[in-house]
Amino acid sequence: MTDALDDNFHVFDTTLRDGAQREGINLTVADKLTIARHLDAFGVGFIEGGWPGANPRDTEFFARARAEIDFQHAQLVAFGATRRAGTRAQDDPQVRALLDSGAPVITLVAKSHDRHVELALRTTLEENLEMVRDTVSYLRSQGRRVFVDCEHFFDGYRGNPDYAKQVVSAAHEAGADVVVLCDTNGGMLPAQVQAVVATVLADTGARLGIHAQDDTGCAVANTLAAVDAGATHVQCTANGYGERVGNANLFPVVAALELKYAKTVLPAGALAEMTRVSHAIAEVVNLTPSTHQPYVGVSAFAHKAGLHASAIKVDPDLYQHIDPERVGNTMRMLVSDMAGRASIELKGKELGIDISDDRALVARVVERVKERELEGYTYEAADASFELLLRAEAEGRARRYFRVESWRGIVETRPDGTHANEATVKLWAKGERIVATAEGNGPVNALDRALRVGLERIYPHLAGLELVDYKVRILEGRHGTESTTRVLVSTSDGRGEWATVGVGDNVIAASWEALEDAYTYGLLRAGVEPQE
Amino acid sequence: MTDALDDNFHVFDTTLRDGAQREGINLTVADKLTIARHLDAFGVGFIEGGWPGANPRDTEFFARARAEIDFQHAQLVAFGATRRAGTRAQDDPQVRALLDSGAPVITLVAKSHDRHVELALRTTLEENLEMVRDTVSYLRSQGRRVFVDCEHFFDGYRGNPDYAKQVVSAAHEAGADVVVLCDTNGGMLPAQVQAVVATVLADTGARLGIHAQDDTGCAVANTLAAVDAGATHVQCTANGYGERVGNANLFPVVAALELKYAKTVLPAGALAEMTRVSHAIAEVVNLTPSTHQPYVGVSAFAHKAGLHASAIKVDPDLYQHIDPERVGNTMRMLVSDMAGRASIELKGKELGIDISDDRALVARVVERVKERELEGYTYEAADASFELLLRAEAEGRARRYFRVESWRGIVETRPDGTHANEATVKLWAKGERIVATAEGNGPVNALDRALRVGLERIYPHLAGLELVDYKVRILEGRHGTESTTRVLVSTSDGRGEWATVGVGDNVIAASWEALEDAYTYGLLRAGVEPQE
Repeated sequence: MTDALDDNFHVFDTTLRDGAQREGINLTVADKLTIARHLDAFGVGFIEGGWPGANPRDTEFFARARAEIDFQHAQLVAFGATRRAGTRAQDDPQVRALLDSGAPVITLVAKSHDRHVELALRTTLEENLEMVRDTVSYLRSQGRRVFVDCEHFFDGYRGNPDYAKQVVSAAHEAGADVVVLCDTNGGMLPAQVQAVVATVLADTGARLGIHAQDDTGCAVANTLAAVDAGATHVQCTANGYGERVGNANLFPVVAALELKYAKTVLPAGALAEMTRVSHAIAEVVNLTPSTHQPYVGVSAFAHKAGLHASAIKVDPDLYQHIDPERVGNTMRMLVSDMAGRASIELKGKELGIDISDDRALVARVVERVKERELEGYTYEAADASFELLLRAEAEGRARRYFRVESWRGIVETRPDGTHANEATVKLWAKGERIVATAEGNGPVNALDRALRVGLERIYPHLAGLELVDYKVRILEGRHGTESTTRVLVSTSDGRGEWATVGVGDNVIAASWEALEDAYTYGLLRAGVEPQE
Repeated sequence: MTDALDDNFHVFDTTLRDGAQREGINLTVADKLTIARHLDAFGVGFIEGGWPGANPRDTEFFARARAEIDFQHAQLVAFGATRRAGTRAQDDPQVRALLDSGAPVITLVAKSHDRHVELALRTTLEENLEMVRDTVSYLRSQGRRVFVDCEHFFDGYRGNPDYAKQVVSAAHEAGADVVVLCDTNGGMLPAQVQAVVATVLADTGARLGIHAQDDTGCAVANTLAAVDAGATHVQCTANGYGERVGNANLFPVVAALELKYAKTVLPAGALAEMTRVSHAIAEVVNLTPSTHQPYVGVSAFAHKAGLHASAIKVDPDLYQHIDPERVGNTMRMLVSDMAGRASIELKGKELGIDISDDRALVARVVERVKERELEGYTYEAADASFELLLRAEAEGRARRYFRVESWRGIVETRPDGTHANEATVKLWAKGERIVATAEGNGPVNALDRALRVGLERIYPHLAGLELVDYKVRILEGRHGTESTTRVLVSTSDGRGEWATVGVGDNVIAASWEALEDAYTYGLLRAGVEPQE
């Protein structure tokens, strides 16, 4: 059962329907169920799951969502269209499929732009109104709550405001709980949205919602402008996924409502889960989370400028619009060649190494970071490699648990078309020369296994480490230089994760370097004494 | 010499100063000069180049920009701070460096939030006002135009509006041409910005500008809200680069002003270059252009939904808020497993292959695309691979210019620490068996060269092809499956570019597949007859 939040204001999520239109997203039913669980736990009021009947995947989703998910906060919503012209709602198989989905709430999309009625729907303006009335009434008579999405509302309103408002009134009078004004083409700006919503609200008396697309880069602001004008239902998608540029992003919209409007729209404690939920959904749709997304991006509270870094020591609140903990994010100090001494000192403290007394050391570290970043390294995303660098400078020499003599990787096609990956490493550890060979499902995996095979007898601790993420970036060579490859590796020991970086003239060489740092850091972290 | 646009409205770009604070950006002097040329050609009125004196790179930039760039539209701006407390502006070396930069315009950053004055600057409120007056007057006396950035203005205004306005008045009365209200922490929403700008304008009479950060996802809307309230100077960065989440994005701001406000803020013809300029700057800063950026992203006018695709045949203007040609972008139909028949047909037409009469063929192509996308392929970004797939289905068999028997790649460390990359391919072409070996700067490059070495004698046309871009994506394995690797390759023959995709269990295998498609397509495009 749901413990639906106050019905006076709706947070309506359409990630699974409109969000799935984003270029590059392709959701399985299992993906949709996972996302629905995240959204329900986060506490949105409504989850639009798809268009049952329009494709078998969505039909299956509704059947499984009802059977498998015990919704705590959200109500499940089925999306569909008004009945076809010249028929009756109760005879339309598409309308039937909406009822068959078992969803307690149905969103009907209706045309509200006169030219779309004539050119795309190819029916009369009056018949379109009748389609709205008939379909809404029928679904209401079947016990469903109905919302109506007025497609292309704002564009239609510009050319023919009377007709656009007639569609709103038809839906409202037929029993729709909310009539949603959609900026389907996304061309609106906040001032326009605010003016139109206010007028339509005054003229029709319908409860209004807003559905904004981000084509002008103003979807979040347009959504808030509609709320300012009296809309009490906001349609959004997680991370702003959606067709073309995308939809209004759920996370900055709810954060603005909770933190800037002081309006409770989520269950207690939900906002502090926002960063995690955003990243989890990105993971499921298999898109890299946007590093620069408001509130939840890893860069959203990252400070780079030397100017700021020195002042942040005085009072972090002077330099952040909110406390990042409120949305589950954290402040980060970035290490980069733009950073001055203050950043390096703060970063040292973050890592538990106080170097602020040793000015010469700080200067050496700044210098070393500059050199390495010129070569293509980045320490902003590779804390463990930075810590190794910092310790090497502080201790006068790098910690080494092993020394590599050489390595070799071979990739070849087998006669059956599959691939063989084999790697050999030759190394020294604790005074012993080790030669190890291993196969893997790729050349980097083979190298990783060969390194472990060779070292695990001497450092049994390595058996507990796992590579959890692997990223490759080709750094374009400009001005006649060759391109280089940068690899970032994340490794886990079950208690924590760390990231390391490697740079090389090819992906294998770069990966090898990141792996060396990853294992060195893992052993350091475990308190193992270095012994080449 | 500049042909400065109407001075009544300023488009002020700070990509080179504030934009460079973005995590992951690290600009050389050469990069900054290249970006300045792009921005000048695009037609912004002012280019803030950096902080001369604060770091040697920026000092060098100003010297070289004056010597090497013949600005057509923009004026060069140096950024710096008001003089230190308790000194005189003419004695402050930092102020001296601003004059020495030779920039005709200087932006001074001034504190306008009382707590920042006390806690970060550690001086009195009155001395801060005197620092503003003294520095502005002195620079004016030296013949420079002065803009003043009131840092943390909106946060300061909330706590102490009188003091914040005193700073504006001090700058204005001392001779600053524009006083820029900065939302430095980025926490504002448009309605707040509009109200504050309107009040400050009425109370001080100063010419006002706006500098918005994007921490609420509203920087573009905040900028436009300030313009609505009377600001006549907008500070932006290309692609919204900037610290934390970023700054107000130059491109949607100028597009909104030109297309939605019908306000001329760029030279004639500039807007149609916007997509190219955005991508070129991303290239220079070495960040992948955001595919979902408003107006200029490759997805910004891409249509995926079957629903839309069928209606777009009727009238594209019904489904786009502007004609993409106006900003130099193009409408695209996406091929994906969500696409229905209509999308595939339109895509065929785009490629010059009319398949709309053959319903069975269209169904087979839809089916094949679905299968391949499940395996990890993506045709949205790989038109050439899609065309090969489409032709294979239409012609009953794939075009083949060669058949691969096997290939092998070896990567190893040399004794001197450098890497050797060697590849061998065994293939058949025109009835001949070919064995070729080549070295390269990486394993993929070695394979590419071996393939060319083997085939160029038989297909001399291949000598003119060049790999121009190479992207690797690890597709995370979920639900217990192994991860797979997807590679996208762009190839050029000097007249055009095409993109191909390969998927495999490792990066080399995936690259190999994308290369095979790339060369097959290159030969097809050149009109070479297939002969295995």
